[in-house]
Amino acid sequence: MDISCQSLQKFGVMHRENAGLINLNPIQRGGILTEAARKTLDEWADGYSICDHCEGCLEAIKKPPIDEFTGKILPDFLGAESVRVTHGARESKYMVMHSLCEKGDPILVDGNAHYSTHVAAERCGLTVYEVPNAGHPEYRILEEEYAAQIEKIKPKLVILTYPDGSYGNLPDAGKVGRICSEYGVPFLLNCAYSVGRMPVDAKKLHADFIVASGHKSMAASGPVGLLGAQERYADTVFRKSERFRKKEVELLGCTARGLPLITLMASFPAVCERVRNWDTEVGNARYLAAGMEDIDGVRQLGERPRNHDLTAFDTDAFYRISERHKKGRFFLYHELKARGITGIKPGMTKGFKMSAYGLKKEEVKKVVDAFTEIAGSF
Amino acid sequence: MDISCQSLQKFGVMHRENAGLINLNPIQRGGILTEAARKTLDEWADGYSICDHCEGCLEAIKKPPIDEFTGKILPDFLGAESVRVTHGARESKYMVMHSLCEKGDPILVDGNAHYSTHVAAERCGLTVYEVPNAGHPEYRILEEEYAAQIEKIKPKLVILTYPDGSYGNLPDAGKVGRICSEYGVPFLLNCAYSVGRMPVDAKKLHADFIVASGHKSMAASGPVGLLGAQERYADTVFRKSERFRKKEVELLGCTARGLPLITLMASFPAVCERVRNWDTEVGNARYLAAGMEDIDGVRQLGERPRNHDLTAFDTDAFYRISERHKKGRFFLYHELKARGITGIKPGMTKGFKMSAYGLKKEEVKKVVDAFTEIAGSF
Repeated sequence: MDISCQSLQKFGVMHRENAGLINLNPIQRGGILTEAARKTLDEWADGYSICDHCEGCLEAIKKPPIDEFTGKILPDFLGAESVRVTHGARESKYMVMHSLCEKGDPILVDGNAHYSTHVAAERCGLTVYEVPNAGHPEYRILEEEYAAQIEKIKPKLVILTYPDGSYGNLPDAGKVGRICSEYGVPFLLNCAYSVGRMPVDAKKLHADFIVASGHKSMAASGPVGLLGAQERYADTVFRKSERFRKKEVELLGCTARGLPLITLMASFPAVCERVRNWDTEVGNARYLAAGMEDIDGVRQLGERPRNHDLTAFDTDAFYRISERHKKGRFFLYHELKARGITGIKPGMTKGFKMSAYGLKKEEVKKVVDAFTEIAGSF
Repeated sequence: MDISCQSLQKFGVMHRENAGLINLNPIQRGGILTEAARKTLDEWADGYSICDHCEGCLEAIKKPPIDEFTGKILPDFLGAESVRVTHGARESKYMVMHSLCEKGDPILVDGNAHYSTHVAAERCGLTVYEVPNAGHPEYRILEEEYAAQIEKIKPKLVILTYPDGSYGNLPDAGKVGRICSEYGVPFLLNCAYSVGRMPVDAKKLHADFIVASGHKSMAASGPVGLLGAQERYADTVFRKSERFRKKEVELLGCTARGLPLITLMASFPAVCERVRNWDTEVGNARYLAAGMEDIDGVRQLGERPRNHDLTAFDTDAFYRISERHKKGRFFLYHELKARGITGIKPGMTKGFKMSAYGLKKEEVKKVVDAFTEIAGSF
């Protein structure tokens, strides 16, 4: 070790460049902390803060009331009989794959699955088959195709992304769940973009597993996620160590200690409330989509009408401007920033996704007005 | 979902019962945030805060300067050619085992290994062999026994816990490293209790892998850890996905987003400084051990003299009191708390471990005085 302390000073004073702007990045909107969560930060920030009263199992801690939260509240909330805290949705998916499958086994996923579903499968050495989406412009997943694929490939696990992170499509999960039940194949619902935003009940959708993301959709500091399992699979996925009887093998004994879990818990009362206002969010998403499509050369992708806040657009209008603008393809990023808006990746003009989740109606209007004004200015 | 919002109010107002007390729990002492880290909390608390400028790879993010931190600073600090951010030490160990070993493979670990080493191996389906410790009262690991064991079991990986979490023993890691080099077996050093507290250089100790814990020893909010690898193994452990070329398979594409990593970075200038004052900490540990042993019926376990802050004691003195005290075995917890001290597990009186890491000399004295006074009061 030969590090000059001088070179390190910048790490002590890092600031978030775009703090205070409206951030349209869909991964950011559902993870903004509630006031209650923000108030926990100082008191619970130290390393292992939540372990003061641990007796060997995270989910059994009574102070703070993690036991009640994970043992009673979350099972109700998710419609899953057993729930564990994980590092995130991807880690939850990996746990299930790793518990249920052997290397080389086939699994079946939707064609809109998140990259982390594929990477988790790759880590397990699984062979991934896809139910393709129906292509441009809606990219729908055709639920009924799951039956034929299950017959053909005999998967050890079926996964549906609900909604996907590219188009925000919400397929008929219950229909896929019923198909999986009929064939006796375990069914995992990836709800990283839904649990915490909208009501989802794994049992009603015939899902054996439900996966959620605290930092993506439950107003928690990252990284933290949830894995819910119905009882018939809980003993397999949450199996205990042979030698250390309190420790669950797939969780490596313990997962999200500290602030991620505390903020998840502290935000939960508000999260529980906000999922009941999902209709308002869908209304805002439709307003945003309609406003964007009023711009000549902008077209909404994915399902119509919108049923989720994450919405992708073909934005030829902005691409055409980028070709003649002196800042080139970075013009849009700067023009939006000048209007107090961020979250569209710098350089993106041909197409992008965004979300207005949690914004007030006048803020959604401000967003639509900004894009409209920019489109008309060049 | 049928949750009464009334029942949730308590989650919005959680407090840390023992805030403000001197916490002797060894897992807590190295994870207390620095002031610089505490100042980042509000600005960086939202879910995916550090992903504002991500282009698909955590370790390539320039704002905040994660690329420089993980690509330049940490390799220097750890003496490891490639470094990745993980969810914690256990997750780092699992990544290495999962990359280097096949189900059924033998690995060799020290008899003082943390339970999570065993659980990670169990998750991989490995067969664990141990170099036993030399037993009571020092529980030393005999480094030279690694050679015979390697010849006998032909392990795919050798692990040494440096120091262990039970006795705080610091074996001669360089000696084990040289043995592993001679036999050509990859060598992993579990430094969850050392990196961030004391200087450790993987290369100098002939370690192929070094594992660290942010929440345990680097003044970071949990969960966050590090995995350092020398170049000859980096391509294996940090291999990229076939389909998603920016994503590393063992990391599932991305790990510790958000506050855990930001606090790790913000604390780092102070952490880099504090490891240079390790002698002072060892001095305090020896003072604590000597002071405790001045109590009749208290005996220090583990290496003598102390070379690490984590120290275990046989405390027959307190057990004898518990047999006649009206609060029984919980008396010690309450007596300590009345003196502003916590971190010894309620009910423990026969023996326990503790640490005075980071305490001022007068605080260490206060701790010794408290135990001495309690021992003399009943």
